[in-house]
Amino acid sequence: MSYQAIIITIGDELLIGQTIDTNSAWIAQELNKTGINVKRRIVVADKKADIAEALDASLPHADILFLTGGLGPTADDITKPMLCEYFGGNMVVNETVLAHVKQLFAKRNRPFLERNLKQAEVPDNCTVLFNRMGTAPGMWFEKDERIIISLPGVPFEMQTIVSEEAMPRIRERFKGNAIVHKTLMAIGVGESFIAEQIEDIETALPPHIHLAYLPTPGFVKLRLSSEGSDKEQLQREVDIHADLIRQRLGNVIAATEDIPLEEIVARALQLHRMSLGLAESCTGGYVANRITNVAGSSAFFKGSVVSYANEVKTNVLGVKKETLETVGAVSEATVIQMAENARSILKADITLSISGILGPGGGTAEKPVGLVWMAIAGPNKTISKSFHFFYDRPRNKEMAANAALNMIRLFLEDL
Amino acid sequence: MSYQAIIITIGDELLIGQTIDTNSAWIAQELNKTGINVKRRIVVADKKADIAEALDASLPHADILFLTGGLGPTADDITKPMLCEYFGGNMVVNETVLAHVKQLFAKRNRPFLERNLKQAEVPDNCTVLFNRMGTAPGMWFEKDERIIISLPGVPFEMQTIVSEEAMPRIRERFKGNAIVHKTLMAIGVGESFIAEQIEDIETALPPHIHLAYLPTPGFVKLRLSSEGSDKEQLQREVDIHADLIRQRLGNVIAATEDIPLEEIVARALQLHRMSLGLAESCTGGYVANRITNVAGSSAFFKGSVVSYANEVKTNVLGVKKETLETVGAVSEATVIQMAENARSILKADITLSISGILGPGGGTAEKPVGLVWMAIAGPNKTISKSFHFFYDRPRNKEMAANAALNMIRLFLEDL
Repeated sequence: MSYQAIIITIGDELLIGQTIDTNSAWIAQELNKTGINVKRRIVVADKKADIAEALDASLPHADILFLTGGLGPTADDITKPMLCEYFGGNMVVNETVLAHVKQLFAKRNRPFLERNLKQAEVPDNCTVLFNRMGTAPGMWFEKDERIIISLPGVPFEMQTIVSEEAMPRIRERFKGNAIVHKTLMAIGVGESFIAEQIEDIETALPPHIHLAYLPTPGFVKLRLSSEGSDKEQLQREVDIHADLIRQRLGNVIAATEDIPLEEIVARALQLHRMSLGLAESCTGGYVANRITNVAGSSAFFKGSVVSYANEVKTNVLGVKKETLETVGAVSEATVIQMAENARSILKADITLSISGILGPGGGTAEKPVGLVWMAIAGPNKTISKSFHFFYDRPRNKEMAANAALNMIRLFLEDL
Repeated sequence: MSYQAIIITIGDELLIGQTIDTNSAWIAQELNKTGINVKRRIVVADKKADIAEALDASLPHADILFLTGGLGPTADDITKPMLCEYFGGNMVVNETVLAHVKQLFAKRNRPFLERNLKQAEVPDNCTVLFNRMGTAPGMWFEKDERIIISLPGVPFEMQTIVSEEAMPRIRERFKGNAIVHKTLMAIGVGESFIAEQIEDIETALPPHIHLAYLPTPGFVKLRLSSEGSDKEQLQREVDIHADLIRQRLGNVIAATEDIPLEEIVARALQLHRMSLGLAESCTGGYVANRITNVAGSSAFFKGSVVSYANEVKTNVLGVKKETLETVGAVSEATVIQMAENARSILKADITLSISGILGPGGGTAEKPVGLVWMAIAGPNKTISKSFHFFYDRPRNKEMAANAALNMIRLFLEDL
């Protein structure tokens, strides 16, 4: 038996494009772990009629309906009274919620205002889902054997309520089919090329295993999915086919799970017991930022000299003025000096340097926008490589950082 | 007359939460500029039946329907033949598209494979929207006076097709009501507090001007929206009310348009003709990354010493060993030395330093997770401040970077 969920997101800000919806993706992942499929996602405006229309259209098709957004303290939030009315209840002050809201205001040294009293009102026909992280409680309604869960839109509040309050109740209620996903992260080659390489493996997949290609700026993600009653059996089958693909594609596959490239690099550094330092020019700290997103990165990451100005390249990194004057900052000679000097300054086992032109300005006929030089200095050798990216500034920065992290990965694999 | 659009996004990856949908937000912004409202957004699976169901349900309610995703070269893409059938056409090879696809493959040094021939096939009942950036063309169908536009899911390809091919045709066809939005960026105070401060202004808003509160990790965005026939008149009215709010809230308002905090700081630096340097520990290059996201930042940004390891704080930034041994890296004395020494090392007019504990590990009773010290050294003074953030590692990093950028903004306002 397979259960279906629909996620309704409420908010004008999502319809005018001011906010990106990350909540739905997170909820979908949580539901998938429990074997519940998300059949559809809908975004509607902060309007009673539009919310009601979406509820009417979705309720017949979903075992579980999630609503997020529209529960905050200010005048533009209308979801709570609307749901109360839709499910035929009355608004009442909930004393537990009231005490919690007052305590939160005290802790944050903010005055408790008359309008905040409303935040403690809930419909009397729902189960309150406690919001440890904020003031707006979640709500659990039931109608015709279907579950309707309303949640605040602030991501970390929503996530806490789902993890701590909603999912335990959902797991108890719905025991569905197992769903198994496995993702291979391919880097450095295109979608069509991969498809051609593994065509025979793909054709021979059993009908209940589906392969999807997801191109992203860093990777082509290859996702194998399978649904059935025996989770262990599914996992074994998916693992076997994933392994066939991995062997065929070789070191193009950077990981066999959907983790960020910085996490892959962090694991490789720890495996080789090596520390990392950086000397970034055009990426402006972005590679260091990615590395330090990994919890525990202080165990292997020394630091970065973000030498955006040329005088920082000479004064701090000791790049020769002569080099900058003759071949320029975006050159093989410069990145080699940056990497090698940074290695002794930062006392790191390996260092990576980057210098390039990300655009929109700064390009010349000889050195066009998108040209990026990188070098890695290690205990026994220094390697250098140039890249050319063809996109706009944000995407070129993303591509350069991905290429840098991948260069570190391959350097470590080669040791 | 007001026109309505619906955006349908196709992709299993969006329903299982593997990918975040940024395309819909971008399309919505473009449509808004032309006075077209997005009434609803829907995400459905890569399944013929689900796409058809969404089309059936949406066509009666929309003047324009956008579909994104499902047009790539690999086996999991089914949208193109499905749409062809839905609108009653036949697939034919389009010679212009074929020539373009072949040329793209040649430019990227990738072999043109048999399966890539399919990418040049289009339904014979659509207008092809040329995809300068990639291989999958956009398609423009018409049915019962409604427009249906199908686009590839890769963001920069989709954006180029919409800007260059779709929007000019849309603007020609639909001349609707004007929509005016204006957003004020409030920083450092909560949603309820703001609502209380401007209650009288909000109550006195004319009925056709709507105020919405959008809390984000960095800001509370206050968005005034208005729709009507006379765009200039709307703009004047919205500006007047925005100005009332801005005056009431004072320097809590960092900007009167929806721009990132780093852009606000960049403008302030350029206004004061001052250069910026950074000495980051716990934020690990994230503040430098934000600053260098601004195009043209090399005009005022010198660089950052990302001193993640204590030895980099001493060796590169010259923080006294004695200070680290007695009061530790997360202390007022350390950040003051970091900022003042970085100012001479990076030769910047002002420098900001950050040292803190973002978690999950590393906290003690005396210095808990979330404690962050910052200092700014300028030509005439150095100021320092401590913060305490209560969230998880990624959010603490975000909050710390926002606090740092805001501290620079206020420092410059005070000069």
